[in-house]
Amino acid sequence: MINVAVLGYGVVGSGVVEIIKKNGMSISEKAGQKICVKKILDIRDFPDSPDRDLITKNPEDIFEDPSIEIIVETIGGAGVAYKFTKDALSKGKHVVTSNKELVATHGPELLKLAKENNVNYLFEASVGGGIPIIRPLNRCLAANEIYRITGILNGTTNYILSQMKREGKDFDEALKEAQAKGYAEADPTADIEGHDACRKIAILSSIAYNEFVDCNNIYTEGISKISLEDMKYAESMNSTVKLIALSEKVGDKIAARVSPAIVKNSNPLYNVENVFNAIIVKGDAIGDVMFYGRGAGKLPTASAVVADVIEIVKHWGTSGGYDWQVKNQDNIIDINDTETKFFVRLKVKDEYSAKEAVGKVFGDVEWVKMCGDGLKDELAFVTGKTSEKKHKRLFETIGEHDSVIQIINTIRVLGD
Amino acid sequence: MINVAVLGYGVVGSGVVEIIKKNGMSISEKAGQKICVKKILDIRDFPDSPDRDLITKNPEDIFEDPSIEIIVETIGGAGVAYKFTKDALSKGKHVVTSNKELVATHGPELLKLAKENNVNYLFEASVGGGIPIIRPLNRCLAANEIYRITGILNGTTNYILSQMKREGKDFDEALKEAQAKGYAEADPTADIEGHDACRKIAILSSIAYNEFVDCNNIYTEGISKISLEDMKYAESMNSTVKLIALSEKVGDKIAARVSPAIVKNSNPLYNVENVFNAIIVKGDAIGDVMFYGRGAGKLPTASAVVADVIEIVKHWGTSGGYDWQVKNQDNIIDINDTETKFFVRLKVKDEYSAKEAVGKVFGDVEWVKMCGDGLKDELAFVTGKTSEKKHKRLFETIGEHDSVIQIINTIRVLGD
Repeated sequence: MINVAVLGYGVVGSGVVEIIKKNGMSISEKAGQKICVKKILDIRDFPDSPDRDLITKNPEDIFEDPSIEIIVETIGGAGVAYKFTKDALSKGKHVVTSNKELVATHGPELLKLAKENNVNYLFEASVGGGIPIIRPLNRCLAANEIYRITGILNGTTNYILSQMKREGKDFDEALKEAQAKGYAEADPTADIEGHDACRKIAILSSIAYNEFVDCNNIYTEGISKISLEDMKYAESMNSTVKLIALSEKVGDKIAARVSPAIVKNSNPLYNVENVFNAIIVKGDAIGDVMFYGRGAGKLPTASAVVADVIEIVKHWGTSGGYDWQVKNQDNIIDINDTETKFFVRLKVKDEYSAKEAVGKVFGDVEWVKMCGDGLKDELAFVTGKTSEKKHKRLFETIGEHDSVIQIINTIRVLGD
Repeated sequence: MINVAVLGYGVVGSGVVEIIKKNGMSISEKAGQKICVKKILDIRDFPDSPDRDLITKNPEDIFEDPSIEIIVETIGGAGVAYKFTKDALSKGKHVVTSNKELVATHGPELLKLAKENNVNYLFEASVGGGIPIIRPLNRCLAANEIYRITGILNGTTNYILSQMKREGKDFDEALKEAQAKGYAEADPTADIEGHDACRKIAILSSIAYNEFVDCNNIYTEGISKISLEDMKYAESMNSTVKLIALSEKVGDKIAARVSPAIVKNSNPLYNVENVFNAIIVKGDAIGDVMFYGRGAGKLPTASAVVADVIEIVKHWGTSGGYDWQVKNQDNIIDINDTETKFFVRLKVKDEYSAKEAVGKVFGDVEWVKMCGDGLKDELAFVTGKTSEKKHKRLFETIGEHDSVIQIINTIRVLGD
């Protein structure tokens, strides 16, 4: 029998306990040994919980108990969770987590510590909730050189954008609804501004390219500037707006970003609606593979945590941990040096001369008309593909032109 | 260093050799040891192949060589491949294969033999080509009770149906084109009649439900009876026709079938076009997860084979083989006892009295009108959900009615 302790009896932690109880028989069968939750650490009281007898407020009950060999960390954040994880690994206990912030921030150190202590630090649940992605990327696609990852990695923002598209709600209204349904937190910044997706693409990239990718170096832009009008323009291009996290191998460096993007209906990500997540991985042998499912939620995320626990028990004695080498702190290409196309909306005084100015500044562009009535005093177009640095200059130039009142928005266009 | 031998230097076999050469460095890094192809067995001559020095016609060069510890079997079929696999496992050599026929037919025996000899028999490449599905199902979703699998598992038929839908080609024309492009074999029976998909759903079901599911007990119907008109009717229902393989846990038994089915545009499988495959797995914790990618082809399939080889080397010494218990030979529910809805097309003499007869025989039905002009002397409708046995009786009754000339086609409707 293998004893597990769960740190943090919140949404995911209580889900882990629930799944181990509910599917205990088949889990033990698959793991080859019985798996048992011996202790749960939480500073709160849960007098009505069926698990109340397992709950302790004293970390020593767990860390000083040699019979507890696997720690499930579902506290979140990079504070006390960081300390507990180091303690556990140092004491030779395996750690399984859903904590993307911790993995993205301290991954290399914690993986090294795990290796030194011959234990595993596993985090399948940190990206894509219950969607199997970490292990497939690391194992099943191991014969491939992976050179691109494109994903919808945040369920909250995808829900908001889906509501804007389908129900014609504006951003604020859709955000409020997401909060009411429990899909967005009271302080939704980490989701809305793209930080959550950024941590996840950093983790996936670190695995795919076999070197640590620091989320602090990834350009990140959220969805709060996306309006209903942008969405309608996208529709008129047989496209939609999604928060896209992507990374790509370019020579020995990596181009990566998180930003809203115009996604064509021929792209499988176009159809990913509401709280669903999807990740497209491109490898030299396999071509495109897509993984799709619920990217968050109690039981999906908990099931990924438990799968990691089973994996450790099944391969007891062999440490199969990942190793993230910090090869190059400077491995991310400056966003200004990456190339993309932009969708641009201008508020204009005089349509005719503004059109002429756009032609002079941007060269050939694709003009975009909104379905239905269109908007007065507006011009919209898609630029050619060139560097972001050059785009910035072009945006400045057109913004200063006499015929242009303001640049309403600029949104990147997702390439093929 | 670990030596590998490849049996069968065909499409997949030569792809395996190519990938191990091309991505050798990173493969060795991931596996923890260098992986080397020492011999290739084939009865044919390949004087111009870069691998000609490795090719032998003598199986003893491989089976009697103790330095060869992993055998890649890409011969296909259940003849000589069966014998070679047994020989290899008996001699304590690991076997990796893409051979779905062999796995579906002799899986339990070969897995047992592998276990007895402390080696692995792995077959990630047997389903979904390069799409990671076997290992995710077995490992990543291990915390779930899985209760349904629905998939597009055959690229050839999906290509043909996509061409019918998109290009308006009829079945024969689309088949010929698939053959010309190398997507269908000269004798396309195994693909067209659903046998290939049937073997694959049998393999997936055996893993998901942890007991052997015999493909011979699964009801299988191909796509050769699907016409352009059927496709147009489907379109008018915001649906399309796909060859769907599915299996579902019902109590302690399994309902399974392979057949053409009407698939709504709200189902993610609707958008799976051409040679792509997709598999939706439903688990009690995770809900729906989908895996999507190229279901066939040299390098995608070979990359899955090589991933299995890496897996064995990485966990050298621990046999992580699957075990398929033959719990119950009679574990598949008779197709007649399963429930479904049918889309039905009738050729009628007299529309009014035929409609009345349909109402009397089938009760409430959804009438379907083809977009555009529609067809003369035809009635089309979707029945309510009831057993296939009862459907057969109702089809007989309506077929014999005075107002009905013939039943043109009946196609199952994929449920939610």
